[in-house]
Amino acid sequence: MNQQKRLRDYGITIGQMEPGKKNAITDVKGVRVGHSTIDEGAIQTGVTSILPHSGNLFQEKVIGASHVINGFGKTMGLTQLDELGTIETPILLTNTLSAGLTANYLIDYMLESNPEIGRTTGTINPIVGECNDMILNDIRQKAISRQDVFDAIDNAKDYVEEGAVGAGRGMVCYSLKGGIGTSSRKLYIGENQYTLGILVLSNFGTLTDLTIDGRPIGIELEKHINASKSPDKGSIMIVLATDLPLLDRQLKRILKRTVTGLARTGSIIGHGSGDIAIGFSTATTVPHSSAHEPLSFSFIHEELLEDAFRAAGEATEEAILNSLITADTVTGREGNTRYGIIDLLNKYGMNL
Amino acid sequence: MNQQKRLRDYGITIGQMEPGKKNAITDVKGVRVGHSTIDEGAIQTGVTSILPHSGNLFQEKVIGASHVINGFGKTMGLTQLDELGTIETPILLTNTLSAGLTANYLIDYMLESNPEIGRTTGTINPIVGECNDMILNDIRQKAISRQDVFDAIDNAKDYVEEGAVGAGRGMVCYSLKGGIGTSSRKLYIGENQYTLGILVLSNFGTLTDLTIDGRPIGIELEKHINASKSPDKGSIMIVLATDLPLLDRQLKRILKRTVTGLARTGSIIGHGSGDIAIGFSTATTVPHSSAHEPLSFSFIHEELLEDAFRAAGEATEEAILNSLITADTVTGREGNTRYGIIDLLNKYGMNL
Amino acid sequence: MNQQKRLRDYGITIGQMEPGKKNAITDVKGVRVGHSTIDEGAIQTGVTSILPHSGNLFQEKVIGASHVINGFGKTMGLTQLDELGTIETPILLTNTLSAGLTANYLIDYMLESNPEIGRTTGTINPIVGECNDMILNDIRQKAISRQDVFDAIDNAKDYVEEGAVGAGRGMVCYSLKGGIGTSSRKLYIGENQYTLGILVLSNFGTLTDLTIDGRPIGIELEKHINASKSPDKGSIMIVLATDLPLLDRQLKRILKRTVTGLARTGSIIGHGSGDIAIGFSTATTVPHSSAHEPLSFSFIHEELLEDAFRAAGEATEEAILNSLITADTVTGREGNTRYGIIDLLNKYGMNL
Amino acid sequence: MNQQKRLRDYGITIGQMEPGKKNAITDVKGVRVGHSTIDEGAIQTGVTSILPHSGNLFQEKVIGASHVINGFGKTMGLTQLDELGTIETPILLTNTLSAGLTANYLIDYMLESNPEIGRTTGTINPIVGECNDMILNDIRQKAISRQDVFDAIDNAKDYVEEGAVGAGRGMVCYSLKGGIGTSSRKLYIGENQYTLGILVLSNFGTLTDLTIDGRPIGIELEKHINASKSPDKGSIMIVLATDLPLLDRQLKRILKRTVTGLARTGSIIGHGSGDIAIGFSTATTVPHSSAHEPLSFSFIHEELLEDAFRAAGEATEEAILNSLITADTVTGREGNTRYGIIDLLNKYGMNL
Repeated sequence: MNQQKRLRDYGITIGQMEPGKKNAITDVKGVRVGHSTIDEGAIQTGVTSILPHSGNLFQEKVIGASHVINGFGKTMGLTQLDELGTIETPILLTNTLSAGLTANYLIDYMLESNPEIGRTTGTINPIVGECNDMILNDIRQKAISRQDVFDAIDNAKDYVEEGAVGAGRGMVCYSLKGGIGTSSRKLYIGENQYTLGILVLSNFGTLTDLTIDGRPIGIELEKHINASKSPDKGSIMIVLATDLPLLDRQLKRILKRTVTGLARTGSIIGHGSGDIAIGFSTATTVPHSSAHEPLSFSFIHEELLEDAFRAAGEATEEAILNSLITADTVTGREGNTRYGIIDLLNKYGMNL
Repeated sequence: MNQQKRLRDYGITIGQMEPGKKNAITDVKGVRVGHSTIDEGAIQTGVTSILPHSGNLFQEKVIGASHVINGFGKTMGLTQLDELGTIETPILLTNTLSAGLTANYLIDYMLESNPEIGRTTGTINPIVGECNDMILNDIRQKAISRQDVFDAIDNAKDYVEEGAVGAGRGMVCYSLKGGIGTSSRKLYIGENQYTLGILVLSNFGTLTDLTIDGRPIGIELEKHINASKSPDKGSIMIVLATDLPLLDRQLKRILKRTVTGLARTGSIIGHGSGDIAIGFSTATTVPHSSAHEPLSFSFIHEELLEDAFRAAGEATEEAILNSLITADTVTGREGNTRYGIIDLLNKYGMNL
Repeated sequence: MNQQKRLRDYGITIGQMEPGKKNAITDVKGVRVGHSTIDEGAIQTGVTSILPHSGNLFQEKVIGASHVINGFGKTMGLTQLDELGTIETPILLTNTLSAGLTANYLIDYMLESNPEIGRTTGTINPIVGECNDMILNDIRQKAISRQDVFDAIDNAKDYVEEGAVGAGRGMVCYSLKGGIGTSSRKLYIGENQYTLGILVLSNFGTLTDLTIDGRPIGIELEKHINASKSPDKGSIMIVLATDLPLLDRQLKRILKRTVTGLARTGSIIGHGSGDIAIGFSTATTVPHSSAHEPLSFSFIHEELLEDAFRAAGEATEEAILNSLITADTVTGREGNTRYGIIDLLNKYGMNL
Repeated sequence: MNQQKRLRDYGITIGQMEPGKKNAITDVKGVRVGHSTIDEGAIQTGVTSILPHSGNLFQEKVIGASHVINGFGKTMGLTQLDELGTIETPILLTNTLSAGLTANYLIDYMLESNPEIGRTTGTINPIVGECNDMILNDIRQKAISRQDVFDAIDNAKDYVEEGAVGAGRGMVCYSLKGGIGTSSRKLYIGENQYTLGILVLSNFGTLTDLTIDGRPIGIELEKHINASKSPDKGSIMIVLATDLPLLDRQLKRILKRTVTGLARTGSIIGHGSGDIAIGFSTATTVPHSSAHEPLSFSFIHEELLEDAFRAAGEATEEAILNSLITADTVTGREGNTRYGIIDLLNKYGMNL
């Protein structure tokens, strides 16, 4: 795999905060990301996993939260996440019609490493997000296998491949090729440095709205190409990771700020776009088994969330733009093609 | 199948309102219920379907809503239901670890009758509720097949079989055998008569708390048997149907009142009990396809909800008790046995 | 003031858990309750305060949460409470039309002891709950003075006067005289003992539904008296205090269980009844001013909430019944009279 | 009063949709806006009213909804608005510490015209929004009188004065003078034309973030002035009106999109900024009194909300910018001064 060129490689920076070393969700220590990609003619789809840590997530849960920006989506697992404030499985992303299957294989994965589930303890809450990749992918085939799910988890590493990979393989964003993008920001509280990272699966919007750092590049591109005017049936999944010590309520507040970055790329949060953010903090783990002694816990003062709010917006904006810029042109179902923005700019002699 | 004896057959009535003709959710015209039951040694589980009407639900959606009493559960489809206020598939109930599979097969079912999904229109939001039947069922086997799901839908009829059937096959309620129960109430608004019906999948509670119409029968039974003192890992799924003309907001308000009936049977809404209510009104259907002219719609004045609130509580209480009273004793995984309450009362020479 | 006879003085106990020493919300160490009562002909109303601790609440906030059972009410302060999870003023209860005034005087009270508000720091979030006492009180007079509010706070003590006092002076519950009631439960976690207490302002329901420990006493009383059949325009305010170390999310989960106690007294959660629960934990305080170091915090494992869930239901049920049993008969606006249940039982030669 | 110059008078347009005739919330037929302004040395504050129609709002309620973007605010009336989906009073905006008083006077206003409140019918739910104007206004004085509230309602007209007027008198936005701003958009559905209008009370943000139509003008201005770096303790109140026939759920979905416009002006939705949106549809009124026959109602198909989503974002963005551009420089408490952006640009020889 070539090193992918990203937004900053074109000299564009978003916001005022400094990114982490990799400018990726994996700048948060312990977080890993994996992909299974299917690129077979009319089947252009896949699975992406985000792993909060490398241990047994069911036994050592992470503090988690979600925020539904627009609920026209089929993400699974949010009811329990909201009730208990913990995440106990990898977060998987895939295509909409494969979400049930993917949840099922994720259950299998968890059962294998946790023989007590359904025997001496209760069940498991799989977290599966999805976007609809029907333009490029024959989504009715539900082409996700058990092996794809297991591979996406087992292949997870601390480097994030972006663009038309994993669950992002068939996604379309602002009428261009979308997919996986990531970004991060460093945070300083007193003497301590923390990191907040975002990974997106981008699949929303129409070309006319695309804005890059204030430049209405979508309108510029429309002079050259005739983008589909069909209503936005897409979605965006936003996954946030941080090592800030946070309560689940605080994490939810941070997740709500991802929408500022989404809006700055041009989104109107269309009716058909199921826009959902899920996040976790790696600062503390919550044991599955109960002890009688109260658990000890740290969290930052509410006022110190301000930088995390800014970071969430900036990193979301940059992650979305990275998902576009790293995406190659893909041709899929019925010969439908969606162009990578760089391919398109090159074709028309435009610069980013 | 024998005619099952129900609560009223023992001379006990709940509340002050009159039940519908069948005292079942199927008293709401057009509503049908189906079961697939698996009774094979350590596999004691199944699927139950509730169909709001007999047409194409994806094309003609019903107004729907949900209410999460306690979110320690894995029900699928609530995010979109809350956002859009419509239900577009049958509601399926099953065991917890099979929820992903069941959602997958329900997607298959919908794809078969809706060839435009994923082609010329978007995707589908499967509604799948679940309870954990691990005591009697080897839940790790995920023993729900595609055929089971299709049968549960295709077998639906306007008569509800109760007790240890369908998804209720392996469920345990108040340390006794639980499962499927139903009840209904008639409502009068001006000249018009309406019906509100409830179906429950009961799987919660410990014996000591069981109360039947004010009688602490759980405490009476504990003198005879040594019920499990293990914490409640159960749940209850409550499905409500009505032909009242309602907004989704009004429907949600009615769903919130189901908890009064739940509480009167003795529930403390335990930590581990994922208690979730889902409801729909058959009074209006909402077309999938958009027209430019505004849709016309009727709904009742907010003050007239009062009787529906009472009905929801009464019918939920009676449906739970019917689920207990109709349930036969079942022996399942590792020889675990949970007794039908009638079997138990007979054994100890007690009356209901 | 005579020692008021309460439910347990009549030999009736609710539930299975043991009450605290005073069987009152003030069993939670540091919690105090105050009343201002106005008993002047057509003016039968007042203010009740609940103080989480004796220090400066603005500087040392308590972890707080709310749960809206039925939102037909005008309680002030919930938006910020839900966002930040802290309470920074005494909780005041009063009549509906005086809620704005009472909030205003509570702001005054807080400004007096916090000169930096509106100067070097931000503003203050007053928590004011209310019920509609229009049957006995000329509510249009809005007869709450600044002095009433200050007195209710300054008079707070660790003993709770119940019945037709404070905000409860004009309240009507199950067509009988309602008002202030309280109860508590002890909790044991490992070696540690904790307390959970409830205070209610009861103003809801119709006589026919009143149930005391399973006995349909409302129906019994209806044989003697002709209770108003007008729809329930009442409400209940439920205030919960505990010294359990809890996250605000956990506290919210506990508050949701108060409805089980409410339902067991007979409530159908009527349309017009604004039923709202507000709670706090005294285990930790959160400083107003931010520090750079993370705050340290304890909370119990989620599974250990089970006893708190039971306690919340039991104490709510008993607090409601105490509000009825301690209430004297009151005659107010236009000669309207609502009878204390004990007065009524005595009149008809009935026993509790 | 001079005709105020607004954003479009400087040749800047926001978005792609066409504004209504006045480019104001009062383009929605029947909607009126009134101000009471106090400009007396250290007292720089006021009240602004938004009236959905000219009839008796208590008797003829409008469909309403709210959306809490960030709940660090003291807006009153949202609990009932969310439960019942209707607005029954004018919406008033004022300073934070005067919200209780303003609610009280609004209750007075409603009592005067509705003698049955508290007698033969229930109470009233006052809607009062607020922002903290402590920089320019001596907010501890709570300088809102009964007359101010009555005047703000009685003076309402179909033209909106913008800038440092009414509740906007003392507000500060992006470290500049903020206040009242408005904008509107036309919508076409089939043959029918509708209007969606926004009014904001702007009081949030720091200069560095201010962006006008993609131009980072805040950063440009910072080269000249030394803006306060104190954390954002502000807020924004967003009021939306439309004549689209909508369910309250649909209205809430539209309100959620106001955040896209807010974000495009540069907001990060700061911790201390209580950002709250309230909206109503004038298409239908809901009678206070109940009839037995179902109410008839129209609403648009969910897919047709797309343009309303876009309109809500565009009009919010433009209303915020109008609030800045129309605001004169104001000096208030302790000589604190906040500059109108136009005054500032003129001073430094810059253009908009």
